[in-house]
Amino acid sequence: MSTPDFTSWSARVLARVESALTQWVPEAAPAGLGLAMRHGVLDGGKRLRALLIAATAEACGCPADHAATLRAACAMELIHGYSLVHDDMPCMDNDVLRRGKPTVHVAFGEAQALLAGDAMQTLAFELLTPTDAECPSVPAAMQAQLVRLLARASGMVGMAGGQAIDLASVGHQLDEALLRDMHQRKTGALLLCSVQMGAACAQVPVGSPRWQALSDYGQALGLAFQIVDDVLDATQSAETLGKTAGKDAEANKPTYVSLMGLDAARAEAQALRLRADEALACTGLDGAALLPLRALAERVVQRTS
Amino acid sequence: MSTPDFTSWSARVLARVESALTQWVPEAAPAGLGLAMRHGVLDGGKRLRALLIAATAEACGCPADHAATLRAACAMELIHGYSLVHDDMPCMDNDVLRRGKPTVHVAFGEAQALLAGDAMQTLAFELLTPTDAECPSVPAAMQAQLVRLLARASGMVGMAGGQAIDLASVGHQLDEALLRDMHQRKTGALLLCSVQMGAACAQVPVGSPRWQALSDYGQALGLAFQIVDDVLDATQSAETLGKTAGKDAEANKPTYVSLMGLDAARAEAQALRLRADEALACTGLDGAALLPLRALAERVVQRTS
Repeated sequence: MSTPDFTSWSARVLARVESALTQWVPEAAPAGLGLAMRHGVLDGGKRLRALLIAATAEACGCPADHAATLRAACAMELIHGYSLVHDDMPCMDNDVLRRGKPTVHVAFGEAQALLAGDAMQTLAFELLTPTDAECPSVPAAMQAQLVRLLARASGMVGMAGGQAIDLASVGHQLDEALLRDMHQRKTGALLLCSVQMGAACAQVPVGSPRWQALSDYGQALGLAFQIVDDVLDATQSAETLGKTAGKDAEANKPTYVSLMGLDAARAEAQALRLRADEALACTGLDGAALLPLRALAERVVQRTS
Repeated sequence: MSTPDFTSWSARVLARVESALTQWVPEAAPAGLGLAMRHGVLDGGKRLRALLIAATAEACGCPADHAATLRAACAMELIHGYSLVHDDMPCMDNDVLRRGKPTVHVAFGEAQALLAGDAMQTLAFELLTPTDAECPSVPAAMQAQLVRLLARASGMVGMAGGQAIDLASVGHQLDEALLRDMHQRKTGALLLCSVQMGAACAQVPVGSPRWQALSDYGQALGLAFQIVDDVLDATQSAETLGKTAGKDAEANKPTYVSLMGLDAARAEAQALRLRADEALACTGLDGAALLPLRALAERVVQRTS
């Protein structure tokens, strides 16, 4: 898949995800709650997680526009979005800017932001469990497995646990193993989960060699993503990032850059991209089918915002 | 079922729920998160919702100690608990006391309380979707249905939506229809959902006459619960309630008492209890099997805290 092919593939997927979210997060939800939720999830940046789900599902034989893929992608973006809404709140990172827009609590007030994040999380699990009448093409076993994967990756041993470690780490020196553990939970768990949810949409058996190879890809990509994030936070302006820059250093939070230095962090990100490519080679999948996944790994490492 | 029988039945159910929650919400979750979650959900008051699930499941033929019933009850208590943790936060009700203990944000800080509530919600959905190896006796179709019921009742059209209406209503006069709509979402939806989850554990078909009669019971009980809550808030001391009293009047929030007066509110609660009893008579279930559900409706209306 050439770069223009990938660009048009991802534009098609994202248009579908955006249109589905626009329909599934209704303006009409009570007392402004729907508006706050839409602010938190629509027009939502790079949508790396949704693209990973679609690319993995498609590589394994489930079309990117299948109801399971689309629901999984929207559920994942809602979970990611809720975590940002809550993370931005004054009691957490106190960020006023996100994707170049005022954060939800700035636009709608703290109480509404709290509720909107809560309801975004709930809606994720609701989207994964449609009735037969709403959506006959996602069998109950797949619904249960998608909920299982998403709940485990985003809960206390995954994303929320990573955020708790992050909270506790401010002002402390973490060694590389602890930093890696924190990021594997905080950011890596959802990226890995995106790959696994895509595989689950295509009914790849959990624990099979293909499942394992795809998981290895997801894990390498997740770690690379965080390292690049730290590099960008240390080197880019708020204007390029669409969010406040240099916050980690300011808060005396440990980062890969503070721990290994800029050059070693960049080299590590490149090494992880190679590892992701190698993992894809072990999936036994057709080389052409893997191109979107390869392109996504490249994008993660080359991105500038 | 006599009063002592009901007391010992509910004590047995609650001991099992408490023991399961103690196991499923591990102290070891990262960086104090587990401790904050346990503070929010263990030793958790009346456990009306868990008892409703167990009583409904048992009345319909699924034992109260079946894995489905126990997981449903714990998931429900985690959702109820998360809503209280977030509701107590400074940006919402700013409550410092809950069930006679400091609230989670007082004991663990606001950021940890936010994360703990988030992770409690996630854990609810995780408990409902065990793997076959963890729990072979809850089939995937039942798992998906339990998630569906719980997500819809607690999300934007249910509990979270009701809270958004509540937020928007402070200082405004609501008429009885709007007040009822707010409470049906905010409190009623989870109580109704408890009855429906219990029925789902026993595989009562959704939409069947029995499902409908049980839902009518749950709806009447939910409304009665809120009316009694308003009566208690207006008449009892903080010491009896284990939480701050008179807060609604102080915040100029509309209540059934402010709207209809104390006597009419009490009479309405009694009328709803009769309606709940009549609904149970339409379930076609054995009179003896229904006794815990009848006792719970009585307890909701007679309670003093």
